[in-house]
Amino acid sequence: MTAAPLFDKIAVIGIGLIGSSIARAARKQGLARSIAVGDIREDHCAKALQLGLCETATTDLRQAVKGADLVLFCVPIGANAEVAEKTVPFLKAGAIVSDVGSVKQAVVRDIGPLLPEGVHFVPGHPIAGTEFSGPEAGFAELFQGRWCILTPPSGTDEAATAKLCAFWKGMGSLIEIMDPAHHDMVLAITSHLPHLIAYTIVGTATNLEESVKGEVIRYSASGFRDFTRIAASDPVMWRDVFLNNRDAVLEMLQRFTEDLTALQRAIRWGEGQVLEDLFTRTRAIRRGIIDAKQDS
Amino acid sequence: MTAAPLFDKIAVIGIGLIGSSIARAARKQGLARSIAVGDIREDHCAKALQLGLCETATTDLRQAVKGADLVLFCVPIGANAEVAEKTVPFLKAGAIVSDVGSVKQAVVRDIGPLLPEGVHFVPGHPIAGTEFSGPEAGFAELFQGRWCILTPPSGTDEAATAKLCAFWKGMGSLIEIMDPAHHDMVLAITSHLPHLIAYTIVGTATNLEESVKGEVIRYSASGFRDFTRIAASDPVMWRDVFLNNRDAVLEMLQRFTEDLTALQRAIRWGEGQVLEDLFTRTRAIRRGIIDAKQDS
Repeated sequence: MTAAPLFDKIAVIGIGLIGSSIARAARKQGLARSIAVGDIREDHCAKALQLGLCETATTDLRQAVKGADLVLFCVPIGANAEVAEKTVPFLKAGAIVSDVGSVKQAVVRDIGPLLPEGVHFVPGHPIAGTEFSGPEAGFAELFQGRWCILTPPSGTDEAATAKLCAFWKGMGSLIEIMDPAHHDMVLAITSHLPHLIAYTIVGTATNLEESVKGEVIRYSASGFRDFTRIAASDPVMWRDVFLNNRDAVLEMLQRFTEDLTALQRAIRWGEGQVLEDLFTRTRAIRRGIIDAKQDS
Repeated sequence: MTAAPLFDKIAVIGIGLIGSSIARAARKQGLARSIAVGDIREDHCAKALQLGLCETATTDLRQAVKGADLVLFCVPIGANAEVAEKTVPFLKAGAIVSDVGSVKQAVVRDIGPLLPEGVHFVPGHPIAGTEFSGPEAGFAELFQGRWCILTPPSGTDEAATAKLCAFWKGMGSLIEIMDPAHHDMVLAITSHLPHLIAYTIVGTATNLEESVKGEVIRYSASGFRDFTRIAASDPVMWRDVFLNNRDAVLEMLQRFTEDLTALQRAIRWGEGQVLEDLFTRTRAIRRGIIDAKQDS
């Protein structure tokens, strides 16, 4: 990049998988003149410095956000309010504050009212991740070709939203602007319910007798394995997702349970045509995903 | 390979993903002097010949099995009985008959009684596959490092079982001998229930309004995508699995539903600790799978 960096200083609060991927990508693409990391875990700060992810890393979050033009909260959703409360008095006038949480209405509700006039709040959600956690788990290409959804509340400064768009585009993302409630409904079916189900079935397997458990691992290539990857995701992050997107998750879960009960009945009564019809319909969605180049 | 082939002639009945992978692997590893394909679909036979998978390919299954030392039924489970009935009078004395179905009690029940004295019946199940179907979908490495479970009924000729073991080992498989009922229980949790759940959630998504469906595809990388791959598997094969392993699937489904209901309740009442505890426990199984080298 020969152009000037988008931001003079960015602060990444929480240097886990997503935070450290942002630091890596921003550095690689020259999007910030300097990167400050704030993380309440000392070992994370040390690791971030050791990996060369940032100029400074501190457990004092107030120090990290000082003078930053862009502040990114990359913490579990439930920690947002506390982080905001701690750092708000130290935010630079005109700074953009954003986050990366998988639920957006709760973030708007929790962070929005805490921010002073003149600080621009543009919540965000990169649709990207792996089952690994921590500062070492990140990589600069994580957002490449992946969607990032921004949900600016009505009245948000358009220049701030545009600048955050440019930042995510610079890291390789495709951008979508969305209403927070709509985001939470769409993610409930594409992400939250799949994770809940994966956690459940892996939990069901762990409750089997010890001897069978070994066989479940041994023969996991037959389908189960794909669920275990999802069910290895960060426990605290996912706890917070379910606690903060309760209504949309319960609604989708109800639909799922009704559909599962119908299939259960079809199996019990040997209704082969019901099964075959559904199994044929579900192939089309896979083709849609492959056509949309979101298949790997 | 410099040793003599294990079999003079093998017959592969049904040249889909698994059948064509067997033909490719057997050829590559020099496990048979000649390979005959039988498939009721003329286009499959033509494709098998065109791909060089076999010496002969015919829609006349009786012709295919004639003189074969090993006959492998690679058809949906529900088609086994018909294939056996058609071909039994033409089986060579001393031939080994096997299959590749994901359910074993039903296969023992359906095929076993049809076979004449002097023909050895050793049911099998390679734990390998992809979401693709048809003769082009197969590849010689599909069984490499994957388990193949054999479930010979009590009284089966041990030499026949040993020879079939050698055949699967020759294609790269690891072998396990198992009781058919135990096999069906283990596969119900590792394979059948995961597929049922994946089909269900993808079905739930296809029932959403048209506008949301596009977004589900767009943001599928957030978890949903992994389910669509499984839910793109062959509809007829999977219909037959559920119809033929009803009791074990319903039992595992019942356990799963109880566990899901408990999580639903925890979400509704905001019991974060219940969620976090489960999400932490499920990580251990993933580590087991990685340790067992079954993670990709």
